[in-house]
Amino acid sequence: MSLVVVGSVAYDGIETPHGKADRLLGGSATYIALAASFFVPVKIVAVVGEDFRPEDWRLLEERGIDLEGLERAPGKTFYWAGVYSADLNDRSTLRTDLNVFAEFNPKLPESYRSSPYLFLGNIQPGLQAQVRRQMPGARLVGGDTMNLWIRETRDELAQTLRDWNVLLINDSEARMLSGEQHLRRAAEKILELGPQTLIIKRGEYGAVLFRREGYFIAPGFLLETVFDPTGAGDCFAGGFMGWLAGAGVDGNDGVALRQAVIYGSVMGSFCCERFGIERLTSLTREEIEARYREFRAFTVF
Amino acid sequence: MSLVVVGSVAYDGIETPHGKADRLLGGSATYIALAASFFVPVKIVAVVGEDFRPEDWRLLEERGIDLEGLERAPGKTFYWAGVYSADLNDRSTLRTDLNVFAEFNPKLPESYRSSPYLFLGNIQPGLQAQVRRQMPGARLVGGDTMNLWIRETRDELAQTLRDWNVLLINDSEARMLSGEQHLRRAAEKILELGPQTLIIKRGEYGAVLFRREGYFIAPGFLLETVFDPTGAGDCFAGGFMGWLAGAGVDGNDGVALRQAVIYGSVMGSFCCERFGIERLTSLTREEIEARYREFRAFTVF
Repeated sequence: MSLVVVGSVAYDGIETPHGKADRLLGGSATYIALAASFFVPVKIVAVVGEDFRPEDWRLLEERGIDLEGLERAPGKTFYWAGVYSADLNDRSTLRTDLNVFAEFNPKLPESYRSSPYLFLGNIQPGLQAQVRRQMPGARLVGGDTMNLWIRETRDELAQTLRDWNVLLINDSEARMLSGEQHLRRAAEKILELGPQTLIIKRGEYGAVLFRREGYFIAPGFLLETVFDPTGAGDCFAGGFMGWLAGAGVDGNDGVALRQAVIYGSVMGSFCCERFGIERLTSLTREEIEARYREFRAFTVF
Repeated sequence: MSLVVVGSVAYDGIETPHGKADRLLGGSATYIALAASFFVPVKIVAVVGEDFRPEDWRLLEERGIDLEGLERAPGKTFYWAGVYSADLNDRSTLRTDLNVFAEFNPKLPESYRSSPYLFLGNIQPGLQAQVRRQMPGARLVGGDTMNLWIRETRDELAQTLRDWNVLLINDSEARMLSGEQHLRRAAEKILELGPQTLIIKRGEYGAVLFRREGYFIAPGFLLETVFDPTGAGDCFAGGFMGWLAGAGVDGNDGVALRQAVIYGSVMGSFCCERFGIERLTSLTREEIEARYREFRAFTVF
C-alpha cells in the first residue's frame, strides 16, 4: 500500500501571537505527506526551486517519503507569508511569491502510477484532473480545493470532482460551492456533484463527514494552547487519507471512514501545538494512538 | 422526584429572517420548565403581571407544571423584544421592560422546599442565593448566569456559585468569568470557584461538560433550518436538569451527566425548529428519544 500526494512544497513566513519565524518548510504536500507518513508509505509530487535546502530534503526522506516526484526547477521555491489575528481565527496573507510553483505541471513517475491511494492537495483543478487521469486504477481518490478555484474555475472544478471519492473542504468553502448556508443542505448539494464522501472541516469545532446514508460529527480537540494553526487542515487530510491507505480500505467502509476522520482530527490537533511542521518531527505513533483513545473517551456516552 | 425552576416568565417580541411575532410567551423559567416537564414534575418560581393571559397559565398547567410559586403582581409582565442577524448568530435587544420583574423577590412555597432538584435560571446572583438557602437539603443544584452579573456583581456571583453543583454558561461568559481565552484553562479556573460540574454551551457547535476528572464534548445537532434560537440555552438547561431529576441521580454520576448533556442538546435543538415555545407544545417523548438515538448514531466511531 502507498499514498500519492500532490500539492505544494513551500517556504513559509508565519507570525502568530506566540512568535514569528521565516522560511519554515511548509506547503500543502509537505503537511499532508508528513501527517500521512505515520500510517503508510507516501510518494510526493511537487516542485521546489534551487534554494530548497538539503536538510529539508533529508527531513522528508527520513520520514520514508518517496521524493522521486519532487521536481527541482530553475528559480525559487514557492514562498508564502502570513500573520494571524490575536485569537488565531483569522489570518492575513502578507506575501505570496509563486516562483517555480507558477509553472507547476505535475508529472507522475512511472513507479507511482500503480499506487492505490491518491490525495490531490489544493492546486488548480485542471492540474488535479491531469494527475487523476494518470492513475485510472486508484482505489480511493481524495482531494481538497479552495475559494479561489470555486470562484474562478467553477466548471472545471465541478468536472474534476466527478472522479473523486472524497472531497475535504472547510465550512465557508462548502457554503460557497453549494450556495447553501445550512451545512446539511450544502452537503446534499455537494454530494450530487460526484464524491460519495464529503468532509467539511470546521476549524476548532472539528469536522463533519457526510454520505448519502448519513453523517458523522467529530468534535475538535480542546488544545490548551494553539501555537500555530498553519497546515492543520492539510494534516487532517494526511491523517485521514494516510490511515485509510494504511488500513487498505476503500471508500465504502463507513466505519473506517469515521475512524479516519478521528485520525485526521488527531493529526490536525498535533500540528497546532508548535510552529510549522515542528510537532510532526517529534511525534510518535504511540502519541497518535493515545490521542485517538482520548477522542473516544471524551465523546462516548 | 420534582424539579424547582426559578427565573423569568416574560412576553417576547422576536424577529428572525423567518418571520416576526410579538408578545409570545417566553422567559428563562418558561423555557426551562417546559423542556424539563418532559422528564419530571416541575415547580416554577417566577412573577407575572396582571396582563398575563389565562391561556398561557393553562398551557403551563397542561404540561403538569406546578404554578403555586408563580406570583401575580400588580403591573405588567416582563417584556423583551429583539431582532436576529441574517445568520442568526447575533441578536440585538430592541426593548427590555422589566415591569413586575424589577421587584422580583422569589418566594418558595412550603410545598416546594423538599424538592431534591433545583435549577436557578439567570437572575441576579443574590436572588439565586436567597432561593438556594431555602432548599438546604437539595440533592442537585444547577444554575445559569450572564455577562451582566459577571461584570457587575462578580463577588456576589462567586459567593453564590460555591453552593451549586452545576454551572451552565456559554463560551463567552466562561471566558469573561475566568479571564482565560482557552476553554480548558477557563474551565479549570471556574471549577475552582465551587461547582463540581461546568457545562459550557457553544451555540450551534454544541456543549462541553467539564469535571476535575475529565471532559465530554457533545456536538450541536445539524438542523436543516433554525427558525428562532430564542430559549435554546434554557431548553438545554431544562432537558439536562429535567432528565437528571427524572432519573433520580446525583451530581457524581459521570455517565448520567453525559447522557443529560445529550438530552439538553436534544431539547435545545427542538426549540430552534419553530418560533418561541411553539415546538415544545407539539413535542412528544418519542420524538425526544428518537433524536437522542440520532445523536448516538452520528457520534459513535
